[in-house]
Amino acid sequence: MRYRNLLIPTVKEAPSESSTPSHVLLLRGGFIRRVGAGIYNYLPLGLRVLQRVANIVRAEMNRAGAQEILMPGVLPAETFKETGRWETFGDVLLRFKDRKGGDYCLGPTHEEIVTDIARHEIRSYRQMPLNLYQIQSKFRDEPRPRAGLLRGREFLMKDAYSFDVDEKSALLSYEKMREAYKRIFARCGLDFRIVAADSGAMGGSTSAEFQILAQTGEDAFVACDRCDYAANVEVAAVEAAPEIEQTAATHRPMEKVATPGKRTIEEVSALLKVAPADMLKSLVYLAAGKAVMAVVRGDHEVNEIKLARALGVPEVFLAGDAEVERATGAPVGFAGPVGAKIEVVADLSVRAVRNGVTGANERDAHLVGVNVGRDFEPARWADLRSASKGDRCVKCGGTYESYRGIEGGHIFVLGTHYTEKMGASYADESGALRPIVMGCYGIGVSRLVAATVEQHHDADGIRWPVPVAPFEVLVTPLGTEPDLAAATDLIYSGLLAEGIDTLLDDREERPGVKFKDADLLGIPVRVTIGKKALADGKVEMKLRTEKAATPVPVTEAVARVAAWVKEARAR
Amino acid sequence: MRYRNLLIPTVKEAPSESSTPSHVLLLRGGFIRRVGAGIYNYLPLGLRVLQRVANIVRAEMNRAGAQEILMPGVLPAETFKETGRWETFGDVLLRFKDRKGGDYCLGPTHEEIVTDIARHEIRSYRQMPLNLYQIQSKFRDEPRPRAGLLRGREFLMKDAYSFDVDEKSALLSYEKMREAYKRIFARCGLDFRIVAADSGAMGGSTSAEFQILAQTGEDAFVACDRCDYAANVEVAAVEAAPEIEQTAATHRPMEKVATPGKRTIEEVSALLKVAPADMLKSLVYLAAGKAVMAVVRGDHEVNEIKLARALGVPEVFLAGDAEVERATGAPVGFAGPVGAKIEVVADLSVRAVRNGVTGANERDAHLVGVNVGRDFEPARWADLRSASKGDRCVKCGGTYESYRGIEGGHIFVLGTHYTEKMGASYADESGALRPIVMGCYGIGVSRLVAATVEQHHDADGIRWPVPVAPFEVLVTPLGTEPDLAAATDLIYSGLLAEGIDTLLDDREERPGVKFKDADLLGIPVRVTIGKKALADGKVEMKLRTEKAATPVPVTEAVARVAAWVKEARAR
Repeated sequence: MRYRNLLIPTVKEAPSESSTPSHVLLLRGGFIRRVGAGIYNYLPLGLRVLQRVANIVRAEMNRAGAQEILMPGVLPAETFKETGRWETFGDVLLRFKDRKGGDYCLGPTHEEIVTDIARHEIRSYRQMPLNLYQIQSKFRDEPRPRAGLLRGREFLMKDAYSFDVDEKSALLSYEKMREAYKRIFARCGLDFRIVAADSGAMGGSTSAEFQILAQTGEDAFVACDRCDYAANVEVAAVEAAPEIEQTAATHRPMEKVATPGKRTIEEVSALLKVAPADMLKSLVYLAAGKAVMAVVRGDHEVNEIKLARALGVPEVFLAGDAEVERATGAPVGFAGPVGAKIEVVADLSVRAVRNGVTGANERDAHLVGVNVGRDFEPARWADLRSASKGDRCVKCGGTYESYRGIEGGHIFVLGTHYTEKMGASYADESGALRPIVMGCYGIGVSRLVAATVEQHHDADGIRWPVPVAPFEVLVTPLGTEPDLAAATDLIYSGLLAEGIDTLLDDREERPGVKFKDADLLGIPVRVTIGKKALADGKVEMKLRTEKAATPVPVTEAVARVAAWVKEARAR
Repeated sequence: MRYRNLLIPTVKEAPSESSTPSHVLLLRGGFIRRVGAGIYNYLPLGLRVLQRVANIVRAEMNRAGAQEILMPGVLPAETFKETGRWETFGDVLLRFKDRKGGDYCLGPTHEEIVTDIARHEIRSYRQMPLNLYQIQSKFRDEPRPRAGLLRGREFLMKDAYSFDVDEKSALLSYEKMREAYKRIFARCGLDFRIVAADSGAMGGSTSAEFQILAQTGEDAFVACDRCDYAANVEVAAVEAAPEIEQTAATHRPMEKVATPGKRTIEEVSALLKVAPADMLKSLVYLAAGKAVMAVVRGDHEVNEIKLARALGVPEVFLAGDAEVERATGAPVGFAGPVGAKIEVVADLSVRAVRNGVTGANERDAHLVGVNVGRDFEPARWADLRSASKGDRCVKCGGTYESYRGIEGGHIFVLGTHYTEKMGASYADESGALRPIVMGCYGIGVSRLVAATVEQHHDADGIRWPVPVAPFEVLVTPLGTEPDLAAATDLIYSGLLAEGIDTLLDDREERPGVKFKDADLLGIPVRVTIGKKALADGKVEMKLRTEKAATPVPVTEAVARVAAWVKEARAR
């Protein structure tokens, strides 16, 4: 392809709205353009990358035995009303009426529609396992679309749905998808971790996220430095600190001290000269309308998902000032477990705090020398805190490293959550009707494009991995003299004949402009044809990931470049 | 691919909602399933056909130098408000608000968005000609979705937009698309005509429809039996009948006759024993609020598009009873041009009517012996009637044949209609700013799937042309005995090795069931492996389009079938 025949509107500065590297570089490189909040045009180069990622996804889904279908983007409300998600989706579901007043929405995900297919077409256990997938534009009315393709409102998604006779078979389907996803992410050149995740909202039991490592990621997770355990901080289990001996000998007496106006861990820690790890942080939450006090070490954070799970409620909410005062008799900042009038639930690590400091449930006062067992006893012990770097792995005793990531994929065993609600059942070998067991598996195809840029760029631009690059090779002639034009033509047509996807920069621009655009666009290999080197019968081969260029004889250039690309494709 | 690994839910009866052959057969063959009015799921076989058609479209667009992009499906209202189409689109445009109250719509077509790209990215004449296209799901809230994929609400469309420096260059872009479309329709195996069409609504000047011949088509057009002229009946020019001598010698005197209660051409024709061709049909229309009388021969129909064009107004409306009486002094059925108090516009063929019959502008009376020139003189003469079979071609004097068709594609020169409204201009060679000249080009990709079935089916099912077939060859073993299984495997794996897209019917079904499904699915070639023929070392090769099967030696089957398919691909 010739550069002059392609719309590649590179620009020097990205609009101020853009923040993350992928957003800036995809705009600057003319890959995408903004149409509205979280809504983008894919210009020719952007679409080429998107299609390459989609084709890798398609190939691996097919290899795993999944069948491609295409469901509509505009969905009638009926099936969503059957599962209750017409309400529970909230404002993310964009609802509207058609000209006849019928209720419709833009499909944010297609469990309902595919389950409707299943209940009509699956009759017998013989028809399963079955896995149906699609690659389709989705719309979710996100409250805060951000960072370009990383969190858009309209985005390209691959969503797959498996149907099995029982949970055991469903887990096999799940494992197949897990393996397919590993291949997909690896083929896209992404550094990722498979991370245990909260699957409550989807109604499932087993689930994992494919997290693409990136500083700019929205998700925080921990991964063991020794074994393969990794989990979202929201759900990562934390090993309790070893219990320490709590005896009268080590216990100081409990005393009340004045802490006027000192409310936060930092303030009290500074005033009383105690380490935060020796303090008991006490927060009041509302759980199903009831106030409860959660106690963690002063250097830890309460994890609300874990707290809700410990209390057996779907959600907890931090109590407001008035509620805290009503529940504890003291203003915010002075609550504590000693003599608390409400249920106390304490994190496991609190067991190891000796002679701790906590609020006195009284304005401007804290207690020191507080000891579990002697001074208070929580109604429940639970793992309440978010995991963090340095914690010990619950699986192998290794040490957690903390990461930020971009959720590129998510796989779930859904069980019979949808099939029971919608009456999707099959006849087993005895002829008895049983609910189909489902799994669902998503990949944010357009998000993968942005995530690739997050991992593969430098100060000058993008550095596409070969399998997803818009072109594999960029041929850059620095002039139009006959010799130079002949060498250019030889190399360009030679590469095309080798099946190498090649872009020829045929613009009449200064070398500096061509090089700057080349770095910005990030095509993996550049072949530069200049007068000086050509006089010695040479051209330059330069990898986007390396600083230095290698002189190559004109006669060998096509073979050398093609060999490198073919090897990189297979990697 | 193995039949058992694919969801192909064939059924004996299509739902009663389905009418046209393509709708019935695509449902029965398990290609599509209905989700809502005009909204369908593509199951695996249906999606395969859709993707093949899309890939033919993509290949020919690329060959013509167009660049693929992807614009969003959810569009902010702003640009539609700039062009006025936010209002003029009417209820077909599905509008809604997002969570922040912003106005959005589902893109029915993308002139506004692509013009927005052009006004931001095109600066100079050097950047043109430019042609951007996309293949994308569109939604139009049609009042009467019908016939499955023929007129859906959500459908797959290829829409292309060309940008040129002037009208002359725009016409070259238009011609390129015309040629690309011819190749696309031919490659899909469609019998089509390129038909002149009304382009008023798009604001353009030159346009043509690609009409796929089908009895079930919504569009009527005429095509010359001698030259390449073809036009939608709405716009087809009609050659006036040769003028005849109008002299006193041939004229009878004009007389009033009583025609009590006889209002229609048929009634008056029967009563007075005159042929409809000798009558003057007079209809009152409102044009820009003013009543005018249109006069055509009794056996012709007034074409409202031509009438509006003749009067220089956007639309005309047939007047109601009260308005007719006010304008002519007589009830509906008795209007006529003689002594009419309103402007009379007459069709060219009226010139040749001698001693005609028409309404007397008086209740229960008609005039006979009416002659143009002597008894009345229209304010204007114009081509007012719809063309029909047997009319003479305006281009070559040949004879029109009449056809029904499915509009598969439509190409337009838009001129500066959108670019002027949206301020999309470029600097010409002198640096002066000029509006960009646009063209737009649409193909209903999913409609082409249905149209292919309309043209290629018989009583038993579909007969896919090779280039768009879901599979090229169906291998049908009639048993599982070792010999038979070995021959099946030889042929199936041999065809795959030859790159032939092959489906193996590995179901344990009776031959009758397999043959019935084979005919319904319409895969172009079937290789049947049966015990009896195999005993002679033979299998059967049968084309879906032919009744008889040909015995072929097992050892030659792969080569024979592969050769036929490869030849059919290239056709």
